[in-house]
Amino acid sequence: MSKPQPIEYKDASPEVKAVFDDIMQSRGLPDVNNFWKHLANDPRGLKRTWESVKEVMAPGALDPMVKEMVYLAVSVTNNCGYCIASHTAAAQKAGMTPEMFGELMGVVGMANETNRLVNGYRVPIDPQFE
Amino acid sequence: MSKPQPIEYKDASPEVKAVFDDIMQSRGLPDVNNFWKHLANDPRGLKRTWESVKEVMAPGALDPMVKEMVYLAVSVTNNCGYCIASHTAAAQKAGMTPEMFGELMGVVGMANETNRLVNGYRVPIDPQFE
Amino acid sequence: MSKPQPIEYKDASPEVKAVFDDIMQSRGLPDVNNFWKHLANDPRGLKRTWESVKEVMAPGALDPMVKEMVYLAVSVTNNCGYCIASHTAAAQKAGMTPEMFGELMGVVGMANETNRLVNGYRVPIDPQFE
Amino acid sequence: MSKPQPIEYKDASPEVKAVFDDIMQSRGLPDVNNFWKHLANDPRGLKRTWESVKEVMAPGALDPMVKEMVYLAVSVTNNCGYCIASHTAAAQKAGMTPEMFGELMGVVGMANETNRLVNGYRVPIDPQFE
Amino acid sequence: MSKPQPIEYKDASPEVKAVFDDIMQSRGLPDVNNFWKHLANDPRGLKRTWESVKEVMAPGALDPMVKEMVYLAVSVTNNCGYCIASHTAAAQKAGMTPEMFGELMGVVGMANETNRLVNGYRVPIDPQFE
Amino acid sequence: MSKPQPIEYKDASPEVKAVFDDIMQSRGLPDVNNFWKHLANDPRGLKRTWESVKEVMAPGALDPMVKEMVYLAVSVTNNCGYCIASHTAAAQKAGMTPEMFGELMGVVGMANETNRLVNGYRVPIDPQFE
Repeated sequence: MSKPQPIEYKDASPEVKAVFDDIMQSRGLPDVNNFWKHLANDPRGLKRTWESVKEVMAPGALDPMVKEMVYLAVSVTNNCGYCIASHTAAAQKAGMTPEMFGELMGVVGMANETNRLVNGYRVPIDPQFE
Repeated sequence: MSKPQPIEYKDASPEVKAVFDDIMQSRGLPDVNNFWKHLANDPRGLKRTWESVKEVMAPGALDPMVKEMVYLAVSVTNNCGYCIASHTAAAQKAGMTPEMFGELMGVVGMANETNRLVNGYRVPIDPQFE
Repeated sequence: MSKPQPIEYKDASPEVKAVFDDIMQSRGLPDVNNFWKHLANDPRGLKRTWESVKEVMAPGALDPMVKEMVYLAVSVTNNCGYCIASHTAAAQKAGMTPEMFGELMGVVGMANETNRLVNGYRVPIDPQFE
Repeated sequence: MSKPQPIEYKDASPEVKAVFDDIMQSRGLPDVNNFWKHLANDPRGLKRTWESVKEVMAPGALDPMVKEMVYLAVSVTNNCGYCIASHTAAAQKAGMTPEMFGELMGVVGMANETNRLVNGYRVPIDPQFE
Repeated sequence: MSKPQPIEYKDASPEVKAVFDDIMQSRGLPDVNNFWKHLANDPRGLKRTWESVKEVMAPGALDPMVKEMVYLAVSVTNNCGYCIASHTAAAQKAGMTPEMFGELMGVVGMANETNRLVNGYRVPIDPQFE
Repeated sequence: MSKPQPIEYKDASPEVKAVFDDIMQSRGLPDVNNFWKHLANDPRGLKRTWESVKEVMAPGALDPMVKEMVYLAVSVTNNCGYCIASHTAAAQKAGMTPEMFGELMGVVGMANETNRLVNGYRVPIDPQFE
């Protein structure tokens, strides 16, 4: 009983259905992912999160593929299994090739390594970076 | 006495000087950053890390600006102050505009938020992402 | 052979049994959770951890439901699946409603987001917060 | 040149001023914190973040003091110095006493400890928590 | 006013003084570190934490230098500046040489890197490790 | 289709086979772990990572068992399930006893706890640690 359950479209309130409709239309998909079905337990949180994600991930100064790769880089750093799976798929759909994925993992791994070397050696910031 | 001290070029061993020379030449800079001066306390670690960074950050399937932004995204997620300062500068040098930085922070913030919503709601991976 | 195995009550040493008895009595449960059964591989660690948890989670200036929600917030931030499951159940038992859970996730998500915005923008502490 | 600079009210665009006005009015303060002044470099991000924070931190099923303590618990776990300073102040303003702070730190510390014990012992989820 | 203040020995309650005395005697030092002076704001937390640290860090199956290096490895991973400084000093006092420190940082950096490669490539556990 | 797939020895390119051969010979094993089979999707990353791991984990000022325990400590802190499983096995092979594992977990847990107490109490670094 303690585990949050997904809310399917047919069982959703009009408020939730409206958000689901906007997601499906914006993404061109016949259904929403499990993420949105679970968030639907908190209708205001669902609406707020979707509107923020929609705005943040829209094409702008950065193109969508770069945004998806950054999302993936953060998710890999935080070890969010669901997020890694869904944003790998989204980045691939936006154009990420296997070569790009390999290089992305190289950068993510190296950044996580050197972040700790900096911590351990207590490196002070060079004046030109301030 | 306990804090690691930087090693300046003039005080470095030939082994360390060779790595410093390669960094300065590759980057077109008259000196190396504090990061390399501190790592020089472990000459093998300095050489290994520089060779890996050089290979990972070289232009490839991803362009250098995107790589620097991914490095920055990871460093922001991990809260590495030195790395945030140095890779913001590197990304700017590679072409990141203030608008790109703003959007990058938007994606990094959103990814860190939704990573936790996924954790808390225990969202199972959709079959199409496997 | 490498994976730690749980120790069941019937197989436990008197030292471990004494801790298990105290846990079951304090919590009003007929058995202890998998967490305690695994920790029992290190009897001193089991005793030390239980005594600390018992003291920390006891009613005090903060009531038990708030304490369980804070425990859950940390576990969600760290992505500890077992801890999320067990402390969601404990918070629910202590009175957390679905509405409270939704708001809790909202705060946890927002804090994880703004923590990174602060890092990326390198925001200095306002004098009044020192 | 690389470090993001704060934008003061007098130098802000009308779009940013409108958000600053809403923050000052909602919080009953004569100026906004450094956090908002830095975020103002990205006007849409400023607006989006403020609207989300305002909604998430409003009184609801959880009272504001509990929300501020959860925010603080996450910030302490992530080691965000600015966030720890500002949300300690906000929690105190909302009623957190020194005793509550001491107990809060106790729970945050214990959760961070046991999260890792669970990881290291690879504890499987008990059926009753699913 | 919001920032926790250290409690000096001369201003401490008898309860706190007793813990301070035990720390100074166990460590052979004329005063306690800032960590303990700050924790003294929560006398029960001070006592509980000291007793746990004392037990955990005592010589046992692992010698004290190894324990201090593990403590340092975790602190570097979490980027806790105070903890890095104090446990580098403690590890040095227990025998850690500059060469050992360099190798330790190498392992910590590599583990943080490969942890993320594993996440990104979603590597399943080999049967022999179960 | 989106999930990275392992590359088996028989299907590997000569470049990948050469790395696999070196791993098997160095470790005295008849096959490589899933980690290397997945990394093989990025042949340069595979080679770079293996050469770094080989150098970092070789006997030196620190013995291999200590290095494996530090690797495990980092992996437990980051909650990398695969890494915890594989490095527990490697540490056991290198001599780690159940008593050592119990003490290691004690130190890792305590460090993760006190790291957060330091953050929350905003403890300044003592002059003698600088």
